[in-house]
Amino acid sequence: MTRVVQKYGGTSVASPARLRRVARRVRDAAAGAQVVVVVSAMGETTDELIALAHSVSTDPPSREMDMLLSSGEIITAPLLAMALEAAGTRAVSLTGPQAGIRTSRAHRTARIVDIVPQRVLDELDAGKVVVVAGFQGATEELDITTLGRGGSDTSAVALAVAVRAQRCEIFTDVSGVHTADPRLLPEARVIPVITYEEMLELAAAGARVIHPRAVEIGEAYGMEIRVRSTFDEHPGTTIRSVANANMEERQKVRGIAHETDVAKVTLLGVPDSPGVAASIFGPLADEHIAVDIVVQNVSHAGTTDVSFTVPESDLRRAQQMLDGVAKQVRASGFSATADIAKVSVVGTGLRGTPSVFAQIFRALAEAGINIQMISSSEIHVTCIIDRARVRDAVRALHAAFELESI
Amino acid sequence: MTRVVQKYGGTSVASPARLRRVARRVRDAAAGAQVVVVVSAMGETTDELIALAHSVSTDPPSREMDMLLSSGEIITAPLLAMALEAAGTRAVSLTGPQAGIRTSRAHRTARIVDIVPQRVLDELDAGKVVVVAGFQGATEELDITTLGRGGSDTSAVALAVAVRAQRCEIFTDVSGVHTADPRLLPEARVIPVITYEEMLELAAAGARVIHPRAVEIGEAYGMEIRVRSTFDEHPGTTIRSVANANMEERQKVRGIAHETDVAKVTLLGVPDSPGVAASIFGPLADEHIAVDIVVQNVSHAGTTDVSFTVPESDLRRAQQMLDGVAKQVRASGFSATADIAKVSVVGTGLRGTPSVFAQIFRALAEAGINIQMISSSEIHVTCIIDRARVRDAVRALHAAFELESI
Repeated sequence: MTRVVQKYGGTSVASPARLRRVARRVRDAAAGAQVVVVVSAMGETTDELIALAHSVSTDPPSREMDMLLSSGEIITAPLLAMALEAAGTRAVSLTGPQAGIRTSRAHRTARIVDIVPQRVLDELDAGKVVVVAGFQGATEELDITTLGRGGSDTSAVALAVAVRAQRCEIFTDVSGVHTADPRLLPEARVIPVITYEEMLELAAAGARVIHPRAVEIGEAYGMEIRVRSTFDEHPGTTIRSVANANMEERQKVRGIAHETDVAKVTLLGVPDSPGVAASIFGPLADEHIAVDIVVQNVSHAGTTDVSFTVPESDLRRAQQMLDGVAKQVRASGFSATADIAKVSVVGTGLRGTPSVFAQIFRALAEAGINIQMISSSEIHVTCIIDRARVRDAVRALHAAFELESI
Repeated sequence: MTRVVQKYGGTSVASPARLRRVARRVRDAAAGAQVVVVVSAMGETTDELIALAHSVSTDPPSREMDMLLSSGEIITAPLLAMALEAAGTRAVSLTGPQAGIRTSRAHRTARIVDIVPQRVLDELDAGKVVVVAGFQGATEELDITTLGRGGSDTSAVALAVAVRAQRCEIFTDVSGVHTADPRLLPEARVIPVITYEEMLELAAAGARVIHPRAVEIGEAYGMEIRVRSTFDEHPGTTIRSVANANMEERQKVRGIAHETDVAKVTLLGVPDSPGVAASIFGPLADEHIAVDIVVQNVSHAGTTDVSFTVPESDLRRAQQMLDGVAKQVRASGFSATADIAKVSVVGTGLRGTPSVFAQIFRALAEAGINIQMISSSEIHVTCIIDRARVRDAVRALHAAFELESI
């Protein structure tokens, strides 16, 4: 019998009416397969719980925060099981620990160490849909942990691997992985098939539809992932290894991603000597500030300018450190701006295709968009541009690679 | 070192401000003792979760309901632990299952089978306050259960027994067990010491301040229970076995209880033959309708009237059955009214003191209150009266036994 894992995010289960809708979808799937469902907390529940914690403590211990946050999914899971039973489908809900999800002890950012799925398998064999609370697990000591960002996606793909499911379906509020953000560009299309690697690049470049951690597990274990909408019947996007895709029909450029939570810092007049980079980026790393793109121009008269991007949400913390850093590396000063955005072209083998670079630069130039910084890899080209021009840049690149007609 | 268990009910933890207040009380207690805290769900949380369940299912399975309801206490416990840490007291929260509370499989009305308190003891020995989610436990299969009415009181006293605490303190929104309901009778006084047996009778007669299940466990294991207020410093009421109380100063009558969730049914003209009672009360028992007081008058011409009380909340269901029951026992008909209330005088050795009966009847007569039914035991006398006269009856009896001056 086919076995599938389905994951429904917070928007999909935000109200009793939506839970009943999800129950109908699950019931239909369960007519022809064994189904494990992984659920997130309803709507804004997690944010509300975090606010509650901060109302009793300025610095809540992570262990206690995890126990508190786990309640969100412990509410959704039995509610969906009840809705399934009401729809005539036998169902049972399990907490993450009950489902055998064992994690590291890193509270709030725990990693799945192992899954012992015996209880899940027993319930499936008893003919039930198993609804598992996502985003949570337990340490060896049975302390409750949460998996951090993308936690429920990660629970779902890891469970799919553990129960040897045929595929893992991630249900969300969009119809699949798009060639660009459909809220920005209405003509963006759903990509039917994409490789794990391409999906990881798209996610890293700003696409939010599935978390990279989940894609990495899918890639490591060869688990097929399907991203689709709770609210329509579109077949969505299948994420799988390249070997399975139709190689003849594949395009080099798969999608355009963008990211606006980004800021640029430039250290001016830095003496161009060994160890300078370590002096700059070591302190930032110690503060867990994620530096993304780094550009260093050729040196003039023994000094150079070093520019890099950080999440805009970390800019204030970064600036607090940069006075000291600038002094230490004997820079003449630094500048910072949050008025920028990243726009990325993602595909396979871009470096082997110089014309792609030419097409990108031409498209942006014709749209009158200045490129402030560039970074590229085998499968992405990212340009830093003026934030006000993001929509224009995405549209220009989407059109240049004819993504509206895939 | 002294070891105490404290339990805080839903009203005591209803808001972040109240949680911080509870944290200060617990911190003060923890300065001189090892403290285990048992908490209920915040305010109306449990009722809200039940409403949520009924919004997705007309008949939610009990197992799923238990998992859903368990989230209420799983929210309070870490929040209190956070508030304690913020107040400078080391604390750790545990779910009922983590605290080793093993129960029967009777979902929604589970009974505690055993407590394996190793984790609780380890954390106490590590110098922490242990905050346990009340009202919940787990079966042998690790399914989450809830303990039904009075569940958190029961968790607290059972944990006190399991960790060999010196006493269990039940914190609530009144200053202790009163000689009558203080909302009804402002002159009611806090009873300083009361026996388990008397407390059970008061609770059975309508006093809501602690659940009888918890008192029964206290009695069975000789665990001293103290009932006191979260919101003032009154020493409250100590519940313990009679051997410890000061026998010389004890009064026979300890308090006046009342109950308005009560209705009266009378089957008229019932043939007075063997097996009639079984025919009447068997079907009611099968429907879990709790019959309380039963009065059968002497028979006239081979028929008699049988009156009994049921909770008003069950009256509609009882009436639906009584047409059939009346036919089966060949009664001439039945009447029902919810316009009544129970008023009870509770004390020790009342039967051995006929003057108590006389005092009761005289007090009610002087207040012009008619007694519709009477029931008595060694330690209570209950009168069924007109509901409109409850306050007058409580006041008259309270005054007759001079309870305002204890």
